[in-house]
Amino acid sequence: MLQGLFDHIRRFVPLSGEEEQVLVQYIEIRDVKKKAFLLKEGQVCQGNYFILSGCCRAYFETERDGEQIYHFAIENWWITDYMSLESRKPSACNIQAVEHTSYAVLYRDVQDELFAAVPQLEKYFRIILEKALAAAQLRIKYIFTQTAEQRYHHFSGLFPDFVQRVPQYMLASYLGVSPEFISKIRAKKKV
Amino acid sequence: MLQGLFDHIRRFVPLSGEEEQVLVQYIEIRDVKKKAFLLKEGQVCQGNYFILSGCCRAYFETERDGEQIYHFAIENWWITDYMSLESRKPSACNIQAVEHTSYAVLYRDVQDELFAAVPQLEKYFRIILEKALAAAQLRIKYIFTQTAEQRYHHFSGLFPDFVQRVPQYMLASYLGVSPEFISKIRAKKKV
Repeated sequence: MLQGLFDHIRRFVPLSGEEEQVLVQYIEIRDVKKKAFLLKEGQVCQGNYFILSGCCRAYFETERDGEQIYHFAIENWWITDYMSLESRKPSACNIQAVEHTSYAVLYRDVQDELFAAVPQLEKYFRIILEKALAAAQLRIKYIFTQTAEQRYHHFSGLFPDFVQRVPQYMLASYLGVSPEFISKIRAKKKV
Repeated sequence: MLQGLFDHIRRFVPLSGEEEQVLVQYIEIRDVKKKAFLLKEGQVCQGNYFILSGCCRAYFETERDGEQIYHFAIENWWITDYMSLESRKPSACNIQAVEHTSYAVLYRDVQDELFAAVPQLEKYFRIILEKALAAAQLRIKYIFTQTAEQRYHHFSGLFPDFVQRVPQYMLASYLGVSPEFISKIRAKKKV
């Protein structure tokens, strides 16, 4: 069940069979239906979620546009609200399943104990956080420097399957464009 | 000279006097004049920079607006281009001193050796990366959900001294507004 997580960890640090068994004791596996919430605005975020199968989105409720998606996660991606997780304050965002989703939870209150038992996991998280921060910095660059159309083509070039997988209005929210705009671009492509 | 860095580390993990001495061997201290570059577009980023005194900015050259600042760093902040540092590919950004700046460099090629010698530094970086990622996620939220005027007031509320310290056109670039817009808001406030 956790093979996807073990494989992901081994891309960055070594992990023995014995260490896999230690890890299993610290991880909870969950299964939720489409539209279920992993985290709701106002709750304190308790852990870091690794998607085993399915797809989730993280979004803020906004006055202006209703919803603003700031992050998606599919298989082998971690998703959480680091602001709430770190500060132990209520979250300002929601994390919701876009499809039927299985995920592994690493709870904050056992994380340090796990890192003490399997020290290279600290390195694993340090490395994936560097990658996530690099991606967030690049995303800020693209928001400011690309037109909406460039942003759509760039994103769908990087993640072609993903673009087919999520509803159009969610993709629009993530890219900061209107759903009508995406329909228009797609129609243009078909011509 | 490195007291600021030692103090910053101790906010998150323990660090003994002996470990300070180990750390010193892995850190290079540099001093640059205003407008000097810590990193130039096209160079491979070699390390992570901790500002001891002064102020730096990280920015992209853009076709549309000339420059887009995506990050500032003042005393006790780390700054780097994680995308280049991680991939060892040429950087797409510039890191430049806004004032006369002293900084400590932790080079990528000695980082693992340092973490092996002082293991809790891996934890230190994991924690500050979580904080940086939380801030980047929040920044994306504000870019999408706040008006330019809200963004200015929010930022100057959080960092009042900083807003006075950097030139107006840089602040405008960071916030994604025009310099004229900031002049206008400031004029309004004085009335």
